[in-house]
Amino acid sequence: MRVYQIEGDWGLGHLRPATRPDPAPGPGQLLLRMTASSLNYRDLVVLDRGYGHFTGALPLVPLSDGVGEVVALGEGVERIALGERVCPMFFPDWIAGEPDLSRLTQSLGGPLDGTMSQYMVMPASGVARVPAALSDEQAACLPCAALTAWRALTVLGTTRPGEQVLIQGSGGVALFALQFARLMGAHVTVISSSDEKIERLVAMGAHATVNYRRTPDWARATREITGGRGYDQIVEVGGEKTLPQSLRCIRPGGTISMIGVLSGAAMQASLGHVVTRQVRLQGVTVGARDDFEQMCRAIAQHGVVPVVDRVFAFDELLPAFERLKSGTQFGKICIRH
Amino acid sequence: MRVYQIEGDWGLGHLRPATRPDPAPGPGQLLLRMTASSLNYRDLVVLDRGYGHFTGALPLVPLSDGVGEVVALGEGVERIALGERVCPMFFPDWIAGEPDLSRLTQSLGGPLDGTMSQYMVMPASGVARVPAALSDEQAACLPCAALTAWRALTVLGTTRPGEQVLIQGSGGVALFALQFARLMGAHVTVISSSDEKIERLVAMGAHATVNYRRTPDWARATREITGGRGYDQIVEVGGEKTLPQSLRCIRPGGTISMIGVLSGAAMQASLGHVVTRQVRLQGVTVGARDDFEQMCRAIAQHGVVPVVDRVFAFDELLPAFERLKSGTQFGKICIRH
Amino acid sequence: MRVYQIEGDWGLGHLRPATRPDPAPGPGQLLLRMTASSLNYRDLVVLDRGYGHFTGALPLVPLSDGVGEVVALGEGVERIALGERVCPMFFPDWIAGEPDLSRLTQSLGGPLDGTMSQYMVMPASGVARVPAALSDEQAACLPCAALTAWRALTVLGTTRPGEQVLIQGSGGVALFALQFARLMGAHVTVISSSDEKIERLVAMGAHATVNYRRTPDWARATREITGGRGYDQIVEVGGEKTLPQSLRCIRPGGTISMIGVLSGAAMQASLGHVVTRQVRLQGVTVGARDDFEQMCRAIAQHGVVPVVDRVFAFDELLPAFERLKSGTQFGKICIRH
Amino acid sequence: MRVYQIEGDWGLGHLRPATRPDPAPGPGQLLLRMTASSLNYRDLVVLDRGYGHFTGALPLVPLSDGVGEVVALGEGVERIALGERVCPMFFPDWIAGEPDLSRLTQSLGGPLDGTMSQYMVMPASGVARVPAALSDEQAACLPCAALTAWRALTVLGTTRPGEQVLIQGSGGVALFALQFARLMGAHVTVISSSDEKIERLVAMGAHATVNYRRTPDWARATREITGGRGYDQIVEVGGEKTLPQSLRCIRPGGTISMIGVLSGAAMQASLGHVVTRQVRLQGVTVGARDDFEQMCRAIAQHGVVPVVDRVFAFDELLPAFERLKSGTQFGKICIRH
Repeated sequence: MRVYQIEGDWGLGHLRPATRPDPAPGPGQLLLRMTASSLNYRDLVVLDRGYGHFTGALPLVPLSDGVGEVVALGEGVERIALGERVCPMFFPDWIAGEPDLSRLTQSLGGPLDGTMSQYMVMPASGVARVPAALSDEQAACLPCAALTAWRALTVLGTTRPGEQVLIQGSGGVALFALQFARLMGAHVTVISSSDEKIERLVAMGAHATVNYRRTPDWARATREITGGRGYDQIVEVGGEKTLPQSLRCIRPGGTISMIGVLSGAAMQASLGHVVTRQVRLQGVTVGARDDFEQMCRAIAQHGVVPVVDRVFAFDELLPAFERLKSGTQFGKICIRH
Repeated sequence: MRVYQIEGDWGLGHLRPATRPDPAPGPGQLLLRMTASSLNYRDLVVLDRGYGHFTGALPLVPLSDGVGEVVALGEGVERIALGERVCPMFFPDWIAGEPDLSRLTQSLGGPLDGTMSQYMVMPASGVARVPAALSDEQAACLPCAALTAWRALTVLGTTRPGEQVLIQGSGGVALFALQFARLMGAHVTVISSSDEKIERLVAMGAHATVNYRRTPDWARATREITGGRGYDQIVEVGGEKTLPQSLRCIRPGGTISMIGVLSGAAMQASLGHVVTRQVRLQGVTVGARDDFEQMCRAIAQHGVVPVVDRVFAFDELLPAFERLKSGTQFGKICIRH
Repeated sequence: MRVYQIEGDWGLGHLRPATRPDPAPGPGQLLLRMTASSLNYRDLVVLDRGYGHFTGALPLVPLSDGVGEVVALGEGVERIALGERVCPMFFPDWIAGEPDLSRLTQSLGGPLDGTMSQYMVMPASGVARVPAALSDEQAACLPCAALTAWRALTVLGTTRPGEQVLIQGSGGVALFALQFARLMGAHVTVISSSDEKIERLVAMGAHATVNYRRTPDWARATREITGGRGYDQIVEVGGEKTLPQSLRCIRPGGTISMIGVLSGAAMQASLGHVVTRQVRLQGVTVGARDDFEQMCRAIAQHGVVPVVDRVFAFDELLPAFERLKSGTQFGKICIRH
Repeated sequence: MRVYQIEGDWGLGHLRPATRPDPAPGPGQLLLRMTASSLNYRDLVVLDRGYGHFTGALPLVPLSDGVGEVVALGEGVERIALGERVCPMFFPDWIAGEPDLSRLTQSLGGPLDGTMSQYMVMPASGVARVPAALSDEQAACLPCAALTAWRALTVLGTTRPGEQVLIQGSGGVALFALQFARLMGAHVTVISSSDEKIERLVAMGAHATVNYRRTPDWARATREITGGRGYDQIVEVGGEKTLPQSLRCIRPGGTISMIGVLSGAAMQASLGHVVTRQVRLQGVTVGARDDFEQMCRAIAQHGVVPVVDRVFAFDELLPAFERLKSGTQFGKICIRH
């Protein structure tokens, strides 16, 4: 079968098309013919240095997100039937409950082989059906970005109608967070660097927006949007550069979901506010299969449509990564297998 | 009546004994004859610079913690009777529920006058009875230190039997956290800088200890204590210097209660672990009256005895502060009125 | 001032217009000029027998729900200003947190005098502002019916997008539950006895409906609506006659909010399902002021409009009660003061 | 291999020793040589009528609880090693998270074959290690009775130090509930029918007791024990006959864990209290593997010793059931394989 793999050493320059033997599902497993994949910022980090601890994982098939059709069943599989369309889970061993080390260390796209493959063998317990209304490319967006946003807003935080949610940017997680927070009746503010993107965010339902290029002190500007009360929840994807401002516009007792570190991984913020305002900084790391299934029920009921920026062909993986690095995309970058 | 007050400017040098008119309770209020107070690290911070935002609060009566006897009732008070022994609450307006700005900004010992006073007028809704078995000095330890530890372990975190809790040092909050975590059936590790203190911590029930002077890489040492699994909960009082190690020994999905910033208020830690291990950093800022009452039921049932380091006379406030600054105390420093 | 009061003995026949001295607010209190009230089923129960334990409460001003304008402030009131429009809380002493006996036993419309009065004196802490877009009659619907529905779906239960909620009938609580469950993104089924009402429920956004007159085995019919999975949450207002069916269509691990006992107060249901399916039966009894304020933020953001069935004049209280008893109303019955 | 099985029809009279072929573990499975089993009241219900819905399950190996040694591993098993001592889980498919129909319908001792067997094949994901300090008989007590008590007090309810817990009787669940509630620092009241049992309950740490034979109105007596406040939590095992009294001594906002229906399955209680006191009736149905593992950490840390009433030989299953039916036992009845 055809795959892309990182060979020999880390780095975009070591990404190569390759051929591997066709796999077959063992007992309790199933075989997926992959139809689409999507890229996440994490995939760039993996490429760069293997997340620091994926030593020995090479050659590695990249990408954690994708969707496929079940084309063969191993012995004893009853959960899923032939012909069904499913996503492999980002953490195939995390069915439900609290995370632990064993559940969090086995993830697709590193250290496990990812979705950039013609076929994948998965444990039947590590996949989940996707809403029928979605195209393959749209469904391929769900495993990491959508589930991260969902879990931040529903499991690790609680979002109620009338609450104020602040979202940073227009990346994959951010757009899903906007869509989900609206389903929950929240009032949503989004900050972005571009008026053009802001226009699209408003069209998607953002109640308020701030261009943080033109308004670098966005903490003050957004705080005014809340009438001085502060945000009940902030979906923090910037990290180093944004956290200090997030701490200034979160309400006492509010939750900052720590999802990404786009602007740097060093946390340099005053602890004072965290302590005296009873702020919660909540790390979010995708989620379990149970969460994914509940999310899909919401997507199906409400006709949520993942925002696809652009679709590349299977052998256009490098240009796809280039686009991801550019930061100019709006929504998810997908691969058609 | 006799008080101590910070006069003219901030700083220990501006702390003076003074006389103020005897106060009288208005409707819904009661008058307390104070019998004991206790010191917290926060009182030093207030002295130093008024917490940065208590401008205009001078002259200010310091100290947030104390206990007194009800010696007069204002009109319409039914909650509390004459002669009862009560603690004024650290946040007199925070009865229950989530904190908000109005509940968190009115606190004793700054910007409101504190307990270093012969008499205090309090709203009847802003005090709570204390367990009969405690001496006045012991009861005076509860409002800030004990309630902070209680709320961290029971409301903002959940502590179950068999869970692993790490506590830093032997300050007021730390000792209460040790006592409460034991009541909840947790396994408790304490780190301390002194073998002599460690001996006392073990006598109080610490299951494991690490001298962080001799074992500067205490994250590794304590992680081994948990069998590599990591701590379910860490009571973080050090801040800047300790947080990076706490992040290395917390378990995936665990909670770090952010209580103090003894070693500095700048947060310099890698966000990576927070995100990828789904860690929760939970700011803790004392608690509500409902929490205090529940805590007192636990103290009464189990005969918990607050650890009093030393008791000073009312006019020995300066030596008391000197001892607090020395960092050599074990437990709470109290004032007998 | 003009009031209605229950005089001499319980029963609709003992309801009389009367005159009482104009009240004045004491310290911490405020005076409301009432502009509208609304009726709840509970008011009929109170009339009938004083809820069994309001002995000694006569003469009693009935009705728990209303809205008024602040026309005078007692000493020391800062929370609320002159001229503001506020609802008195159903439980004026329940500001936040868990209920306890003292918070639950002081309620308007019995044992405390209710809203059927030209003026009311309330503690300033026991009222809350209402959204500006609502008329007085609409605002008067909120204290009991809306808050009960809100608390069931947000505090005592958790309602997420894509979840299935079943609501019984078209009374006050039921209609608010429909409106709020939609705000939270749930899929809502309503059962009703009348096709005409069902038409209106669909217009309000019910996703599915069952006429339980024509389909007495509605548990089976609604279960099919959920694809056999069962409801995540059921807002149970019928009691005796409906609970057995609710237990048949709730999902394992689901929550039945026990709100009303319209069809009888004897619980005659098999415990088997409760135990083996891990069902939660959750009593709901209005809520705290903090809940009310959060609910009003949601109402204001989303332009939720309470459904008013009909407005009666102040001296038409008896016909208003007759309409309530008829069971033919759709939405809330209001009184214009 | 030797087994006991229910043959031909339900009922104690159809329980027979039998021989079945030795099983072998398939991929992902392991083979247990069972060393001990324990009986639960549920096993009697299963015997009697197959729980109403286990049609087609005969012949059925009874008993849900047991412990065994891993003597063979199927392909691909890494979680558990040869020679380890594990309990098969009551619900082998419920790893973690919320229950659903598929997780709750596959349980040992019906409809799946149970532990009364020389060997058992289990999925490796459906077993868990047990604390080393326990004997086989003691370990065999954990899967159903201990986990039910644990989950009631820690997952479905929250038990804090100083809270009041009421426990009914001295059956398997009740004794574990007493032991666990003490670990959590609660104040525990137990009601029992016999002074002799009460003596043993006090020896195990019950803080207060009531003999409900001599004090049939135990709701009033126990309410006094709480100083009139009522219980925070009640572990309800009686059902029909006890629930009405439980509703009278639970505090407002308290939780009644519905675990058993020893005195009848018809719920005949007034809904009034449930609604107006915001009571929660929480069905409890054993728990997930994650819960079991957390419970074992608590048991190991605290040296909790399950109370074994009497140990019978493998071929004494009928006398063992007779003793269970007698109701005279104190603690668990075990079988030595």
